[in-house]
Amino acid sequence: MRRISFQDGVTYTFGPDLTPIATVRSGETVEFVCQDACGGQIRTEKDTLDQLDMDQVNGATGPVRVIGSRAGDVIRIQIRDIRVAEWGFQSIVSGHGVLGDEVDRPRTKVIPIQDGFAVFSKRIRLPVRPHVGTIGVAPPAKEWTTFYPGDHGGNLDTKEISKGNSVYLPVFQPGAQLAMGDIHALMADGEVCVTGIEIAGTIRAQVDVLRGLRMNRPLVETSDSWMALASAPTLDEAAKLATHDGVQLLARGADLPWHEAYMLASIACDLRISQDVDPWRTAKLVVPKSLMRRLPRS
Amino acid sequence: MRRISFQDGVTYTFGPDLTPIATVRSGETVEFVCQDACGGQIRTEKDTLDQLDMDQVNGATGPVRVIGSRAGDVIRIQIRDIRVAEWGFQSIVSGHGVLGDEVDRPRTKVIPIQDGFAVFSKRIRLPVRPHVGTIGVAPPAKEWTTFYPGDHGGNLDTKEISKGNSVYLPVFQPGAQLAMGDIHALMADGEVCVTGIEIAGTIRAQVDVLRGLRMNRPLVETSDSWMALASAPTLDEAAKLATHDGVQLLARGADLPWHEAYMLASIACDLRISQDVDPWRTAKLVVPKSLMRRLPRS
Repeated sequence: MRRISFQDGVTYTFGPDLTPIATVRSGETVEFVCQDACGGQIRTEKDTLDQLDMDQVNGATGPVRVIGSRAGDVIRIQIRDIRVAEWGFQSIVSGHGVLGDEVDRPRTKVIPIQDGFAVFSKRIRLPVRPHVGTIGVAPPAKEWTTFYPGDHGGNLDTKEISKGNSVYLPVFQPGAQLAMGDIHALMADGEVCVTGIEIAGTIRAQVDVLRGLRMNRPLVETSDSWMALASAPTLDEAAKLATHDGVQLLARGADLPWHEAYMLASIACDLRISQDVDPWRTAKLVVPKSLMRRLPRS
Repeated sequence: MRRISFQDGVTYTFGPDLTPIATVRSGETVEFVCQDACGGQIRTEKDTLDQLDMDQVNGATGPVRVIGSRAGDVIRIQIRDIRVAEWGFQSIVSGHGVLGDEVDRPRTKVIPIQDGFAVFSKRIRLPVRPHVGTIGVAPPAKEWTTFYPGDHGGNLDTKEISKGNSVYLPVFQPGAQLAMGDIHALMADGEVCVTGIEIAGTIRAQVDVLRGLRMNRPLVETSDSWMALASAPTLDEAAKLATHDGVQLLARGADLPWHEAYMLASIACDLRISQDVDPWRTAKLVVPKSLMRRLPRS
């Protein structure tokens, strides 16, 4: 198993001209070894977000050139496993998060991970469900910091990007230039306080190049659904884009006229929030596989 | 069992000075017989939203005076059962719904209900899960049409207001003045096309007056969670209010300092969308009961 480590290279931007630190073949399974989202700067509860060197925050291991992928293709990343460290943390700071204006002072909470549970307190132990917070490719033109989510992926903070599920990303540049990091041991929809349980870890994933799929934005596949993900400056705009994409997916994949798919989505496809805290917000329309005949091709 | 029917009275507004059509005692179980949201105006697929007399749309059966309830109390409505008619409908029209600008012309689809399934097409049969779309009380001051959701309830379009679950509404006026209607046989989070399966039906519910609960906005109780509901002109604002309320509920109900509850919500409480199509939008923070010790009292 080939390992690509943050020690080989970390990117803090998704730009059109990324220089790869490694290459993978379509169909290859590799490991991405990742620092936590704060690049290891938080070691104790005395370390808070306001003290950090922000140039070392939200790094993604990579980028990796995916051999043979070119603009117009799609890469599928099947998450085979995510192993996390023995502890993670949550941090809050005034001005960030849904209730950033209610935070009195910066605080960090260290959360041990024991036997698959996050030990939030003596009473509150929650089963971990690790996911990849940031996963993206080189975008078509403008450079994005890794704080942003967008059509290229990036800081999607979508809890379903977890073991057993897959992410589909449109390819905009030769070789795709895949990078990932920002693992969370656990997070809820919204990520309301601005952090999940931020943690170092290793992602094992199979990368495949797919041809002939129509896709402008990221898609997540779980055992029972397709999720059309969209990011925009506001939740309202992200929700509209995700609905647009999801209804189109449903119409094509279920052989329905657009207006029938639009109605069906309203009764069978949940419109949900991935995160409501990053510089852009991410929404998802959840399309049950039971409604679909196939993933639509162009 | 006492029945209160739309034939006795329907309200199209939630105002501070509603005149009750009936009274209920705290602890009493009654039936509310409701027209569909379009007041029976849609009979075939030729009847579309653009043709309707809008003065007869989204009526709520009631209002009912809840004996002994006064401003500062809370009423709990436990939904015991919802029986629906043999058919419902979905309608779309340009300018309404998340993708209202993509709708070419008004359309209505009649959906038969057979053996507990909504027959969307020969291939697509979906189990119904009826819920109450509009449920509210007299607000403190301003009059709201029943199209709006707000702190008084109203057009919440929250799919969890269904059999076995309860809604808690703050009381602002003597007697609460409870009204409900707008039943959906099925709806997904978002209600993206602007209609669920709109249908006539009968709601059986127990109404209780509760004292000493702190509550400014509606709350929904399911078997495993408390949902703090909030409505506002945008999804972004509604999401912020729901998070504010839900975190406060969690802090008080779990005996946690506010900052710990804020962090815990970020990993354990999903921020979700009830509806993204009414004149105001409704969001919900889902607080698992497993985290709570009790429902906080003032």
